[in-house]
Amino acid sequence: MSRIAYVNGRYVPHADGAVHIEDRGYQFADGVYEVFAVHDGKLVGEQGHLDRLEHSLRELQIEPPMGRGPLMVVVREIVRRNHVRHGLVYLQVTRGVARRDHPFPADTISSLVLTARKAPPIDKSVLTRGVEVVTIPDIRWKRKDIKSISLLPNCLGKQTAKESGAFEAWMIDDDGFITEGTSTNAWIVTKDGELLTRNVGYAILNGITRLTLLEAAEEASVRFSERAFTLEEALNAKEAFITSSTSHVKAVTAIDGTPIGNGEAGELTCKLLDLYVDFVETRGGPQNTDRWN
Amino acid sequence: MSRIAYVNGRYVPHADGAVHIEDRGYQFADGVYEVFAVHDGKLVGEQGHLDRLEHSLRELQIEPPMGRGPLMVVVREIVRRNHVRHGLVYLQVTRGVARRDHPFPADTISSLVLTARKAPPIDKSVLTRGVEVVTIPDIRWKRKDIKSISLLPNCLGKQTAKESGAFEAWMIDDDGFITEGTSTNAWIVTKDGELLTRNVGYAILNGITRLTLLEAAEEASVRFSERAFTLEEALNAKEAFITSSTSHVKAVTAIDGTPIGNGEAGELTCKLLDLYVDFVETRGGPQNTDRWN
Repeated sequence: MSRIAYVNGRYVPHADGAVHIEDRGYQFADGVYEVFAVHDGKLVGEQGHLDRLEHSLRELQIEPPMGRGPLMVVVREIVRRNHVRHGLVYLQVTRGVARRDHPFPADTISSLVLTARKAPPIDKSVLTRGVEVVTIPDIRWKRKDIKSISLLPNCLGKQTAKESGAFEAWMIDDDGFITEGTSTNAWIVTKDGELLTRNVGYAILNGITRLTLLEAAEEASVRFSERAFTLEEALNAKEAFITSSTSHVKAVTAIDGTPIGNGEAGELTCKLLDLYVDFVETRGGPQNTDRWN
Repeated sequence: MSRIAYVNGRYVPHADGAVHIEDRGYQFADGVYEVFAVHDGKLVGEQGHLDRLEHSLRELQIEPPMGRGPLMVVVREIVRRNHVRHGLVYLQVTRGVARRDHPFPADTISSLVLTARKAPPIDKSVLTRGVEVVTIPDIRWKRKDIKSISLLPNCLGKQTAKESGAFEAWMIDDDGFITEGTSTNAWIVTKDGELLTRNVGYAILNGITRLTLLEAAEEASVRFSERAFTLEEALNAKEAFITSSTSHVKAVTAIDGTPIGNGEAGELTCKLLDLYVDFVETRGGPQNTDRWN
């Protein structure tokens, strides 16, 4: 069955989806995106994604291509047309097509592109198998709270991870603190059992899975702090894991070649994965979604 | 007469130029570009642009879409088909089309897009009229030596300039030094007559016009230094100007509302503009083009 994409008002075969060469997304990375997980036919964290999308657009002064209602009609339709029961929806908004010139063009219509694809359902045995992470300097721009398509440094970082045989690269800021992974948020559990992930601000993107997990943890009375932590703290941690719409809650068992804890998925990590899946299945995603920086 | 673009092997009407929605340039800003000035029917700094393009591609491990010879055939053909006597050629290379995933895809063919447009010929009376500059924090990523299409912060900066009634924004790094403009290099002439522009490295893009002007200055025994300078030094300068393939050598007569020198184009600025135009017309561009970071 062929994939269908939504491109500026039309549903087209994925292979035919095209945008103009002077779309500002292509020439200037002047756009934003969201990736929705689809779990058992339902969108995960719908409200969170829409709130964050609006934050990104507002910060860049890009006009939303349509209201929330119509936008969700398109999102659901792209899920339906691609028969996605488990998988993801990719949604991209750019400032639109205009003669190449850096300032914002007048009267440009924002571009809207959506694609969808199937992925295996959440498999706890895979997620707790454990992956390796390497660390790299965080060379990105200073507004990581905006989910922009300006992802070149993220691609370079992920490639470095791949070439090192790792799954992800955690980025270290100028002050020696870990910010996040190239497409995931970073978490550790300290030796005394405290769950840590970086506080929101300009230094990280506030993940929907991150928000969901924080709410699930709070509900289950799991103690946590949102604060910056160093590589040394991470190497001395009892557990580590990453979160994202595509990685869910995934155990990290080594950082820069050093085993974390006993080198297997941690106890709390496994519990949090259970809590996360339960929370998604009962609540659909985070309830409090107004914290974007 | 309708404009013609070159898109992945075909010359097409500009309005029909399109790339796939999963071109990595559109989803990841995973690409680079060059802007060639065309002066009196000739390409300016051809060798410099090609050398810098190769630097950018090499640093990102993007395969060149074709060799130098064939590429220059396309560049010249796009000039010819668009009847450009004075104007510019925009050339963009991306890592190509692949299913969305951060690491470099295997066996992807690089995308190549070229456009061209006419512009008024160099007009010294316009360039010496003087423009205003504002300053903003440099929030870009840490590899400004790569001419990547990851230009979102540049667009935001240029928009800030425009909203302030200025022509350009000079960016100030974490140490308080000016790096460059959002699409131009920044220059000042100190009270004791020394010409200054930031040294190359990861903090700036080494402009072809910058390189040309340095060679022209050297030949004319104009004393200069390539080093970082502060906003305070700029505000106390006798003269200031910017360079780029589209701004050539353009006088700056105010920074953040403070007049520079006597508030008119400086004497050395005007002399350098003359030297630049002479150099371009006799030499075609910089001769020494191996300094990309």
